[in-house]
Amino acid sequence: MASRTATDLVHPDRDELRFTEVTAALSDPVRLAIVARLAEVEPDGELACTTFALPVSKSTQSGHFRTLRESGVIRQRDEGTRRLNRLRRSDLDRRFPGLLDLAVASGRDVLDEWSAARGVTAIGA
Amino acid sequence: MASRTATDLVHPDRDELRFTEVTAALSDPVRLAIVARLAEVEPDGELACTTFALPVSKSTQSGHFRTLRESGVIRQRDEGTRRLNRLRRSDLDRRFPGLLDLAVASGRDVLDEWSAARGVTAIGA
Repeated sequence: MASRTATDLVHPDRDELRFTEVTAALSDPVRLAIVARLAEVEPDGELACTTFALPVSKSTQSGHFRTLRESGVIRQRDEGTRRLNRLRRSDLDRRFPGLLDLAVASGRDVLDEWSAARGVTAIGA
Repeated sequence: MASRTATDLVHPDRDELRFTEVTAALSDPVRLAIVARLAEVEPDGELACTTFALPVSKSTQSGHFRTLRESGVIRQRDEGTRRLNRLRRSDLDRRFPGLLDLAVASGRDVLDEWSAARGVTAIGA
């Protein structure tokens, strides 16, 4: 992972956040689920990419995290071999008040749907 | 335009609005510009598709209006040969409080940028 230096992780400044890019990032259920999980560990918590157990391939998951980072929804940093993620709550609340809370609520709905689907599978198995 | 009956214009019910689809619809500058223009004629005003003078082709414009309608951002109806548009303000404010206001603000920024660009062109001509 030598190529994963801090300089690889580009983050837009607060003033560079664009509504079109943030809403595009929030228009996907997997990314909303990530946002909802990160909201559970606010304000100071970070979660490693590997802890999410998302129902998508590893490469697809990486793409989702990148989209969230490049749009300004999350901040990522590398610590050893782990890539840690946190919400950019203050930047988002300043630029687009209320938007992140809506996304978190919708992300919780996604997580609930996934839980319910797993429950149905378990019962049917 | 005989095929354009009211039944062609499918609108999701308020409870069917999905955050992923609404944010996707709001993640495009042309669609944000449409939203901002429609906000200028609230609460009771409607604007015909032909009045927008958007910097895109007619077919592209039609696609943008369809995306806005199918996601639940606008309501469309046909009156003679005109297709009229209005924001679904109450439905959106109920389901996703504050989201439409953020979109309107961003759409105004798009309109301002377009105006500024036209001004520069005029000066440069």
